[in-house]
Amino acid sequence: MPLIRSVFQDELDSVSQTLFELSVMVSDSMAKATNALMSKNLSLAEEVITFDEKIDTVQHDLDGRIIDIIARQQPVASDLRALVTALRMSADLERMGDLAHHVAKVVRLRHPAAAVPDQLMSLIESMGVAAEKIAAKTGVVISTRDTTLAAQVEKDDDEMDLLHRQLISVLIAPTWEHGVETAIDLTLLGRYYERYADHAVSVARRVIFLVTGKFA
Amino acid sequence: MPLIRSVFQDELDSVSQTLFELSVMVSDSMAKATNALMSKNLSLAEEVITFDEKIDTVQHDLDGRIIDIIARQQPVASDLRALVTALRMSADLERMGDLAHHVAKVVRLRHPAAAVPDQLMSLIESMGVAAEKIAAKTGVVISTRDTTLAAQVEKDDDEMDLLHRQLISVLIAPTWEHGVETAIDLTLLGRYYERYADHAVSVARRVIFLVTGKFA
Repeated sequence: MPLIRSVFQDELDSVSQTLFELSVMVSDSMAKATNALMSKNLSLAEEVITFDEKIDTVQHDLDGRIIDIIARQQPVASDLRALVTALRMSADLERMGDLAHHVAKVVRLRHPAAAVPDQLMSLIESMGVAAEKIAAKTGVVISTRDTTLAAQVEKDDDEMDLLHRQLISVLIAPTWEHGVETAIDLTLLGRYYERYADHAVSVARRVIFLVTGKFA
Repeated sequence: MPLIRSVFQDELDSVSQTLFELSVMVSDSMAKATNALMSKNLSLAEEVITFDEKIDTVQHDLDGRIIDIIARQQPVASDLRALVTALRMSADLERMGDLAHHVAKVVRLRHPAAAVPDQLMSLIESMGVAAEKIAAKTGVVISTRDTTLAAQVEKDDDEMDLLHRQLISVLIAPTWEHGVETAIDLTLLGRYYERYADHAVSVARRVIFLVTGKFA
């Protein structure tokens, strides 16, 4: 016999499903932006820039749906908390999309030149890989509400912070030979990846809060 | 005879009042952070860093109150929209506090040296003045719901963007003689001021949305 489920529960599940889809979208976006950065691929960068509008639309529609559910169902306590938290997660995910967009815009600004000197390709690629990994894990956390996995997202963020510090140490080393403009680009790129991971951590913490009622 | 007002209306007004207070707090915070940056004043920087916890607490309590109002009053339509928008404004304001905190942390990191070379003092001071002005105006917009004034916040942000571009042009000029590390600090400081103004614009736009039902 199938479980009897309420319309409201179905609506909450559908919100989670869209949050998961947003996490996939922003993960793809950052993967493509990093790829565009590595390969100086302008059309791929343009794709990320255009796709950000799609992410914004999905987020905007989701927020409308969440507010509509609150208005119709008038939830209290944990259900209301889940819906308000979903609004916050959608804002974090939308911002992650913006940050992928920012990375892509650096590619476009410097094209046909490379924004990243050969010396830093592998480090920036590692930041891209870390960003993808953290976004993918955050998607699973949204779907499964697995708080152990959510706690791992923090560890992944530590890895990103380490890469970020390595990046800055290369930029400020006396051996840096690519000039100030490239250092500025790399400073901003580093910040975009770091903030992207911060927002993923924020989403994971919100899931922990939903499940346990406590802030991580 | 006094106007008869509902408890609910009083609660909405009290939310607006706290949002206004938050705007004053983050405006003061950024003013102090800029002052600390100009005067290499470590204790003022520490004050901003400590005060950020106070801002976070006020924001956290406000969010709790807003959710409690939604749960008890079960508002629909424009009242619910106003409360959800208040949650978003409080998030923007809290982030403005974080950015003032970030500026103060640069002061602390470089102390007793100056983070900002003399050559750039006046430009960074102008960014600080622009940030204060935009935050103060945003506070008035929150209190008065004046959409004309809200539209002016966008103009103030254009001014900030212009200052930001001037800053980058100084950093990348062949005459730049303060090295890469200082350029990185200035890149990040510039980004903090710029994002601070962006969040103020976001608050002003949300007020326009509340009043007109349309996104600016």
